[in-house]
Amino acid sequence: MRPPFSFRPPYQTLRWGPRSFWLLDQRQLPGKKTYLNIRDIPAACTAIKTLAVRGAPLIGVAAALAIAHVARKGAGRRKLASGIKRLAATRPTAVNLFVALDKMKAAVDKGYSKDEIVEEAREMWMQEEQYSMAMAEHGQKLIRKTMAVGTYCNTGALAAPGLGTALGVIIRAHLAGKKIEVTVPETRPLLQGARLTAWELSQWKVPYTLVTESALASVVKDLDAIFVGADRIAANGDTANKVGTHGLAILARHFKVPFWVVAPSSTVDMDVKNGAGIPIERRSADEVKTFGLCRTAPRDARASNPAFDVTPAGLISGIITEKGVLSPPYGKSLRQ
Amino acid sequence: MRPPFSFRPPYQTLRWGPRSFWLLDQRQLPGKKTYLNIRDIPAACTAIKTLAVRGAPLIGVAAALAIAHVARKGAGRRKLASGIKRLAATRPTAVNLFVALDKMKAAVDKGYSKDEIVEEAREMWMQEEQYSMAMAEHGQKLIRKTMAVGTYCNTGALAAPGLGTALGVIIRAHLAGKKIEVTVPETRPLLQGARLTAWELSQWKVPYTLVTESALASVVKDLDAIFVGADRIAANGDTANKVGTHGLAILARHFKVPFWVVAPSSTVDMDVKNGAGIPIERRSADEVKTFGLCRTAPRDARASNPAFDVTPAGLISGIITEKGVLSPPYGKSLRQ
Repeated sequence: MRPPFSFRPPYQTLRWGPRSFWLLDQRQLPGKKTYLNIRDIPAACTAIKTLAVRGAPLIGVAAALAIAHVARKGAGRRKLASGIKRLAATRPTAVNLFVALDKMKAAVDKGYSKDEIVEEAREMWMQEEQYSMAMAEHGQKLIRKTMAVGTYCNTGALAAPGLGTALGVIIRAHLAGKKIEVTVPETRPLLQGARLTAWELSQWKVPYTLVTESALASVVKDLDAIFVGADRIAANGDTANKVGTHGLAILARHFKVPFWVVAPSSTVDMDVKNGAGIPIERRSADEVKTFGLCRTAPRDARASNPAFDVTPAGLISGIITEKGVLSPPYGKSLRQ
Repeated sequence: MRPPFSFRPPYQTLRWGPRSFWLLDQRQLPGKKTYLNIRDIPAACTAIKTLAVRGAPLIGVAAALAIAHVARKGAGRRKLASGIKRLAATRPTAVNLFVALDKMKAAVDKGYSKDEIVEEAREMWMQEEQYSMAMAEHGQKLIRKTMAVGTYCNTGALAAPGLGTALGVIIRAHLAGKKIEVTVPETRPLLQGARLTAWELSQWKVPYTLVTESALASVVKDLDAIFVGADRIAANGDTANKVGTHGLAILARHFKVPFWVVAPSSTVDMDVKNGAGIPIERRSADEVKTFGLCRTAPRDARASNPAFDVTPAGLISGIITEKGVLSPPYGKSLRQ
């Protein structure tokens, strides 16, 4: 089952041609819509590392498709195995990447044919798309006819196959005719909110207002609910997501605004007991100290740039997966 | 009494020459150190509106000196009165501007001579410098031998005569030989933290780490105290300051970190009962949607850009003025 046409985004994030594989270069948005031709594993690794492609479910699928693409171009088992290793070393926090690569590794180890390997990756892609639709359906039931909602970073079709995760819920509610006004935090340092979420909402014609993270305390109190995505959910419900999520959850608790996490089951890592076990990627200080070509801090400034933070389960009102809306205690509901 | 040389900043923010008046153009920092020649009232108004000069106590003094400068160049009573009106219309939130201009208006109305008007402004300047020293002395007693402190926006010598307000406390403690490590939030959208506070701390050789506002929840829990400035303090202690201060105060409360406001008495507005009565300046959406020459959001994006927020008195551990450390309830301590 594929979602009806009107529920598919008006832009393509992944392009899988008969002989080529392309990724929308998200670094260029919203200024330019260009596609990267992913010819080999190094190109896929660079795209993931530099955030040309990002979003936990999407990098999982992109990595699987990259393996499938080099397989159909004739790469043998050894080359595929080393490609899987290289892709796994690109980014540490989102667990979806490892889940997807483990599946591809199993297919390679089992001696699958080219076509079967391609089928495995495409299957994963379609499944994640269906998960997105299911999450959107479960989540949009939490949205009333008229509602002011907040989100964080980008969790739309640029972050996951289909409509996305948290933003998918919001867009689905909009498509159901609900009157939604979205608050979009810009999401420093890489501005996924300003560049990507604002762009996606523009494409869908959903009304939104962009704010800096510094303005959040001024606007959160007027929101009816907040929906965010996840890069890895520990067995107890602690959730790693884009840095800034934890602060937003604390504001939500302070102002008594429901705070929902939306993520497919491929984001849940039952092997990690709690948030302390999730590795947090630290990115270059230059992302904080420069902006485009401008330097924004003294050349010798020390800057700290964690890419993720962990929101304790206790601050989360519920976790929405393709299976439904999970309630605390998450230790129990995630196991089921 | 002027502070001893070693306690004066290694850079000049205001330059008052025998026949000229210059302001350090803070928009160019940290890249360039250039001075604006303030020849007339329109130049002073532009400098204040565009944040070439900023910081509540500093814009009060800069406005007073601008009036003094045109007075010594021969402007008559009517011209001075209209200049005072124009300066008062530049920015609405910081009360120091109005306090300073009221004093200058009284001097003009009383028919003071050129020299007396200049003396009035210089007196105010020196008094604010002494207030800074006094606040720094009171505040640094709250800092132990080794401490991790946080601050927000810029509250150093670029924001107030002398050492500054909140940053003045931190720098004074450093000069007293205490081992301080400062967390500096970049302060979007105009990056006063990254551009100005980081630069000032570099000049004083105080160790610091720059972070985005989105990373604050990850670092606040490790701080021993937070010191911020104020643009206007209501009679009940509610405090308007750079947007983002309220969110930081909520994080401080969540993680049980003491949160101190540092401001001279010229920032207290006993005519305003509580925070709801403080006008909040809303600045252009373009400050959020662009960065230097880069556009960072869709052209048609709607953005909200309040320049200040109000931190309720209940989140403030104490208010440090030149008179000492005031404790809650502030309604009583501020009146005294």
